[in-house]
Amino acid sequence: MTALRRSPEKIRLPLGFSFSAGAAGIKVSGRPDLALVEVWGRAPSPVQAERSLAAASAAALFTKNRVVAAPVEVGRASLLSTGGRVRAVVVNSGNANCATGRAGIQACERVCREAGKLFGVPAAEVFPSSTGIIGVQLPAEKILAELPELIATRSASQRGVLAFARAIMTTDTRPKLASACFRASSTEGSKEVTLLGIAKGAGMIHPQLATMLVYLFTDVSASPRELQPLLREACDDSLNCISIDGDTSTNDTVVLLASGASGARVRDIRIRKKLSAALTTVCQSLAEQIVSDGEGVQHVIRLLVEQARSREEALLVARTIAHSMLVKTAWAGADPNWGRILAAVGRCGAPIDPSRVQIFIGSQKVCRNGVACVFNERKAHHSLVQPVCDICVQLGRGQHSVRFLTTDLTAEYVRINADYST
Amino acid sequence: MTALRRSPEKIRLPLGFSFSAGAAGIKVSGRPDLALVEVWGRAPSPVQAERSLAAASAAALFTKNRVVAAPVEVGRASLLSTGGRVRAVVVNSGNANCATGRAGIQACERVCREAGKLFGVPAAEVFPSSTGIIGVQLPAEKILAELPELIATRSASQRGVLAFARAIMTTDTRPKLASACFRASSTEGSKEVTLLGIAKGAGMIHPQLATMLVYLFTDVSASPRELQPLLREACDDSLNCISIDGDTSTNDTVVLLASGASGARVRDIRIRKKLSAALTTVCQSLAEQIVSDGEGVQHVIRLLVEQARSREEALLVARTIAHSMLVKTAWAGADPNWGRILAAVGRCGAPIDPSRVQIFIGSQKVCRNGVACVFNERKAHHSLVQPVCDICVQLGRGQHSVRFLTTDLTAEYVRINADYST
Repeated sequence: MTALRRSPEKIRLPLGFSFSAGAAGIKVSGRPDLALVEVWGRAPSPVQAERSLAAASAAALFTKNRVVAAPVEVGRASLLSTGGRVRAVVVNSGNANCATGRAGIQACERVCREAGKLFGVPAAEVFPSSTGIIGVQLPAEKILAELPELIATRSASQRGVLAFARAIMTTDTRPKLASACFRASSTEGSKEVTLLGIAKGAGMIHPQLATMLVYLFTDVSASPRELQPLLREACDDSLNCISIDGDTSTNDTVVLLASGASGARVRDIRIRKKLSAALTTVCQSLAEQIVSDGEGVQHVIRLLVEQARSREEALLVARTIAHSMLVKTAWAGADPNWGRILAAVGRCGAPIDPSRVQIFIGSQKVCRNGVACVFNERKAHHSLVQPVCDICVQLGRGQHSVRFLTTDLTAEYVRINADYST
Repeated sequence: MTALRRSPEKIRLPLGFSFSAGAAGIKVSGRPDLALVEVWGRAPSPVQAERSLAAASAAALFTKNRVVAAPVEVGRASLLSTGGRVRAVVVNSGNANCATGRAGIQACERVCREAGKLFGVPAAEVFPSSTGIIGVQLPAEKILAELPELIATRSASQRGVLAFARAIMTTDTRPKLASACFRASSTEGSKEVTLLGIAKGAGMIHPQLATMLVYLFTDVSASPRELQPLLREACDDSLNCISIDGDTSTNDTVVLLASGASGARVRDIRIRKKLSAALTTVCQSLAEQIVSDGEGVQHVIRLLVEQARSREEALLVARTIAHSMLVKTAWAGADPNWGRILAAVGRCGAPIDPSRVQIFIGSQKVCRNGVACVFNERKAHHSLVQPVCDICVQLGRGQHSVRFLTTDLTAEYVRINADYST
């Protein structure tokens, strides 16, 4: 059993992006709640005093919830109208700007327009995100008042990145960062490419595409059309295979920005493959960080569903287990009560034959052919007491499998979520 | 807002059934864990010293979970082989006899066979039920050792009924009983018909047909074929419209027994209609008692989903709301955070248009056309603080509606279920 990845000590910065953050007063706590990224394209030459603002190529995935927040509507429309060009990202926490109607859309558009003016770019090239409580109007004027300060203090530094990662947090207890580098050799010479990922999310986590807010930055050169399939593929096995509470947010957004500043081009198949691998690595790390920081989480469960007839069937079984309150509470008590797992498998909707089901907790088989088998209960309990425990369910129906990250359900989760808005 | 029905002070007994219960030592606590019902058919005449054991007509509904307990398999097969005849019911708590394989089936069959011998009837006329932990072999010998005592002490009395209701409890905090009477006038004269319902269930409650264990007894005269549609219809709007934790049990059973002892016949359409109404009343009362005794429940939510395109769509929306951990924890905190309800509606899978959705908490509209509207937060909080709160969601799509009973999710639920088997 390997430990889950945590945020690394040192993260790598791709060329072409500056970061800043501040407190606009949206959160009543006074904590940082506004974050900014600026894209400045190719690395400035030493003689260039002023960096040139350039557009990044962008790909994005959004929530599949039919209730979507204003920034999701505005961001999606902007990417369509610009053909996938982004010059800046403005994120606020403390307010989801969701279920806020026409006024919410207007507030979001106003933030993009004013930020665009400050950068001298069209409003559609400013990509907005919001996270926080649903149904409260966004205080746009607080954001606008803080924006000039953020623009003045932006920097392409570890400090700037960390400030950004902290300002997008809500109930997260720690910032979530991951990065990867690779060398890209082509006919144009050898270049270093960097990928940086920043995420937030600790509740309402059950991606139907993306999960909460995830920003991916790279200095590779690519068109939006080249980026989209790479992003989707990387998310499918990482950010789409996690669940904390089964609730899909109205604001889920994953966005990938490519500045082109490294000079390496994704058109080259070898570079594309390396970028794809780096994206998967970074997204998996962020997925693990999100789950292990889940609200009230004591134990992360690495659920492996094997021998399904299709990947969709494996996912259906994994999600039914991962959303069962009885299973999740048993995990909270490190209780090897595999009967609840079997019962969840039985009600998932797929035509499972219980007499072909095997269940393992840690390395031990606890259920053979759907029936209790002799196992060391103390050892199973010990496996479940660990911060991360592997549980494997074999269905005996086919060759497909899925690896799914989920969590226990603790009294602390209830406490956090019973006290949110009041 | 009306209060939910609790178990009545006085319950009515249908003619033709005797009840008893005892402690067989299946529960380590030593509490009652074995319950018996005997059917003795037409009321014995005063000169008959010995009651004549007669078969009741039976109808039953079982769990839709593909993992089913041994007593569900055995009971279903017995009803088929006898054409719906039941002379006795034997229920144990403390052990679900599920995921126990061939040995579990054999243990259940042995109990039915030995009970049959004691009554002088075929094993197939003894209907078995079990509830408790999954994956542990049923200690049949403990049941067999206690059976003679139960047979000796059976009685057609309030005391017997209450003992039965207590012995089938697991995490239930109180017995669940309901009864109804009606006068049946026909060409054969006027007769009084009584219906008695006894239920258990406090967790793993999300019926996919039936909910946990529910026994319905009536002295009407009816064929199994006449009873089945009446039972299904009564359950559809009551026991099938409740959810505590979304987990469908492997043992769910609803059984209706008709002794015929009143002499009134269901063949008469007026009597059938009255029985149908009585069944619905009793099942709704039991459904309310089950939900309000849900594990750790502080608040019962009476969820009304209106203006759906079909009843199935209304149920889908109701279940998605009722299973959302974020919604349920908000209810635990009496938090009028309707944004979580709207987000659950949005992810339910139906093509909902958020801009047509209205949400009410108590009598107040809190969300108009999918958008926040001005409402008295303190009043909404006050509605949610009550033991029972009405929440209405209108979808603006059609004419169908459903009334669904569910609960909050409290830290106490987590505590109960994290400590179950270990």
